[in-house]
Amino acid sequence: MITKQRLEAFSDGVIAIIITIMVLEIKTPHAADLESLKPLIPVFISYVLSFLYVGIYWTNHHHMILAAKSVNGKILWANLNLLFWLSLIPFVTAWMGENHFARWPVIFYGIILILNSLAYKLLAYMLVRHHGSDSVLNKAIGRDLKGWFSIVVYGIAVAASFINSSAGLILYFLVAALWLIPDRRIERSVNS
Amino acid sequence: MITKQRLEAFSDGVIAIIITIMVLEIKTPHAADLESLKPLIPVFISYVLSFLYVGIYWTNHHHMILAAKSVNGKILWANLNLLFWLSLIPFVTAWMGENHFARWPVIFYGIILILNSLAYKLLAYMLVRHHGSDSVLNKAIGRDLKGWFSIVVYGIAVAASFINSSAGLILYFLVAALWLIPDRRIERSVNS
Amino acid sequence: MITKQRLEAFSDGVIAIIITIMVLEIKTPHAADLESLKPLIPVFISYVLSFLYVGIYWTNHHHMILAAKSVNGKILWANLNLLFWLSLIPFVTAWMGENHFARWPVIFYGIILILNSLAYKLLAYMLVRHHGSDSVLNKAIGRDLKGWFSIVVYGIAVAASFINSSAGLILYFLVAALWLIPDRRIERSVNS
Amino acid sequence: MITKQRLEAFSDGVIAIIITIMVLEIKTPHAADLESLKPLIPVFISYVLSFLYVGIYWTNHHHMILAAKSVNGKILWANLNLLFWLSLIPFVTAWMGENHFARWPVIFYGIILILNSLAYKLLAYMLVRHHGSDSVLNKAIGRDLKGWFSIVVYGIAVAASFINSSAGLILYFLVAALWLIPDRRIERSVNS
Repeated sequence: MITKQRLEAFSDGVIAIIITIMVLEIKTPHAADLESLKPLIPVFISYVLSFLYVGIYWTNHHHMILAAKSVNGKILWANLNLLFWLSLIPFVTAWMGENHFARWPVIFYGIILILNSLAYKLLAYMLVRHHGSDSVLNKAIGRDLKGWFSIVVYGIAVAASFINSSAGLILYFLVAALWLIPDRRIERSVNS
Repeated sequence: MITKQRLEAFSDGVIAIIITIMVLEIKTPHAADLESLKPLIPVFISYVLSFLYVGIYWTNHHHMILAAKSVNGKILWANLNLLFWLSLIPFVTAWMGENHFARWPVIFYGIILILNSLAYKLLAYMLVRHHGSDSVLNKAIGRDLKGWFSIVVYGIAVAASFINSSAGLILYFLVAALWLIPDRRIERSVNS
Repeated sequence: MITKQRLEAFSDGVIAIIITIMVLEIKTPHAADLESLKPLIPVFISYVLSFLYVGIYWTNHHHMILAAKSVNGKILWANLNLLFWLSLIPFVTAWMGENHFARWPVIFYGIILILNSLAYKLLAYMLVRHHGSDSVLNKAIGRDLKGWFSIVVYGIAVAASFINSSAGLILYFLVAALWLIPDRRIERSVNS
Repeated sequence: MITKQRLEAFSDGVIAIIITIMVLEIKTPHAADLESLKPLIPVFISYVLSFLYVGIYWTNHHHMILAAKSVNGKILWANLNLLFWLSLIPFVTAWMGENHFARWPVIFYGIILILNSLAYKLLAYMLVRHHGSDSVLNKAIGRDLKGWFSIVVYGIAVAASFINSSAGLILYFLVAALWLIPDRRIERSVNS
C-alpha cells in the first residue's frame, strides 16, 4: 500500500510555495512615497485573485484526498500533473498584474485556469477509478457540476477577453467567489 | 471529520517560506569591504523585527490549533485569510528596510500588523464558535487582552509615524517584546 | 532508532522547493503581446523536462523509502547527497532553456542527470546494506536495470550533444518517458 | 503538552528552504560557453560548503530533537533563534562566493558560523534544563566537546582570515569534514 500521507505532504509543500512565491512579484518600490504604490495596485489585485484560486485548490484537494483510502502510481502522476499546472499560476499572475490586465495575459490566465480544472478532474477520475463507483469518494465528488460550470465560465471569460479583458477578470473573480462557499457535499458525505 | 493536521502542515509550510524569503531582500553587496554592509543595516533591523513577528504568529498559531479538536471549512478559510496577510509582511519589511524607515513604509507596516491581528482574531473567533464557549480552547484564548492591546498600540504607532516614524518603529519592537514572553495562559489550560 | 519520517518530510520539503523554484526562471515578459511569449518556449520546454525528472525522483524516492524499515546516519547523508545533486537541476534547467538548448548547457544537463542517478544508486546501496540482502527492500530495488540503462543513455546523449544538442535533448525526454511508466516491481513487492 | 512534532515540521520546512534558496545565487550565465561557468566556480564552492553546514545542522537537530520527550515555549524560541542565524547563511554564502573569498566576507562567514553554534548550544541547554540532567537527552548531548572545539576553530579561522582568507576557508571545510562523521554518541544512547 502506497501511503497517501506523503502525497498530501508533498502537495502541501508545493502549494505552500506556489501561494507564497507569488508575493515576490509585488516588487518593492524604490521610493518611499504613497505614489510609488500606485503601479502595484493591479499587481496586488492579480495576487489576491491567484491567492484565492490556489487556496480553493488547496481546500478542494484537501477534501478530496481526505475521502481517499489509498493512492497508486497513476494517482501520484495525476497529482503531479495538477501541481505542474498550478505551478504556472505565479507566471500568469505576474504577467497579468504587470501589464494591467491587458488582453493576452488575461486570456492566458483563463487558459491556465481551464488546464488546472481539467488536471483536477483527471485526478478525481483516477481516484474514483481506484476506489470504485460505490465508494464514499465517488459519492463525495458526485457529478461535480460546479467544476464543469467553472470550466464553461472560464471559456466564456477567455472569449470575452478578446473584446474586453475587464470582463474576463470579473468572471474569474465571480467563479472564485462561487468556490469560496465551502463544498458541503464532500464534507457531509465524509462526516456521515 | 476534517483533520486539523493538514491545516497545521500547510500553515507551517507557508509560514516557513514567509519567514525565509524575507532574507532574500538582504541583497548581496557587490563589493567585499565592510563599508558595503552599512546600507544593509536598516534592511537587517527590518528583517529582525519581521522574523520576530512571524515567529510570534507561528508560536501563537501553534498553541491555538493545539487546543483545537477539529476544524471546518470556514476555519480553513479564516486560516488562509491569516496566511494572506502574513504573506504581505515580506513586502512591507523590504519596503521599510530599503527606505530606512521612512514615513509611509513604517505606516504601512503598522497597517499590515493591524490586519494580521484582526485576521488572527477572526480565526480565533471561528475556532471558538466551532468548539463552543465551554471548550478548553475558549478558556485558553480567553478575552485575549494582549491581542487587543497590541492592536491599539499599532494604531498609536501608525498615528505617531505621521510625525516621527522612529516612534512607530520603537512601538513595533515593544509590542514584539511583549509577545516574546511565552503565553502561559494557553499552555497552562492545555496542560491541565 | 532514527525515524525515517523526518527524512521523508525533509526530502519532500527540499524536492517541493526545487520543483517550484524552477518556475521562477520563466521570467515575466514586460510586454503584453503574444510575441513576447516566443523566447519563453525553450525555457518552458526545459521546465517541463525538469519537472518530469524531479517528479520521477520524488515518486521513486517515495517508493524506495516506503520499503525501508529504518535509516541510519550514513543513509541521512546519502540522502542529503542526492538532494544536493537534485538542487543543481534548476541551474542547468535555466541555463539550457535560456540558451535555446545550446551544446554546453545540454551537455551539463546530462552530466547532472548522471550524477543524480549515481547519488540515487548510492542511497539505494546504503539502504540495502542497512536492511540486508534478504529484505523486502532489496527485492524491491532488484538489479535496477532501468537505472543502469538510463545512465548509459545519458552518457550517449552527452556524447551526441557534442555533435548535435537536439539529439541529447530528445534522449533526455525518451528516458523520462521510460520512467513515467510506474515502477510495478517495487509496488508489487511492497503490496505482497 | 506541546507537541514536538510541529517544531520538527516547521524546522524542517525552514531548513529545507534555506538549503535550497542558496542555489538561486548560482546565477544563470547568459552565454552558453564553458568560459561563462568559470566565474561561478567560487560561488559553487561556497554553495557546497554551506550545503554541508546546513546539512550538518539538520542531522544534528534531527538527532537532538529525537532524544527530546517534549518541548516548551522557551525551547520554541531557542529553536526560532537557531533558525534565525541559519537563515543568514545564504547571505554570507552569496557574499563570500561572489567576492571570490575576499577577506571580509570570509570573516563574516565565520562569525555567522560561531553565532549558529552558540544558538545550537542554547537550544541544547534549554532542552537539557527541561528534561533534567539524568535524562537520555542529557547523556546524548554530553559535554559536546566537538561543538566547543568547532567554535574555537571558527575563531582561529576568523583571526587567520585577517591575514589570509584562504586559511579561513580551509578551516571551515575541515570543521565540516569533522562533523560529517556521524555522531555515534547520540545514536547509541537513543538506541540503547
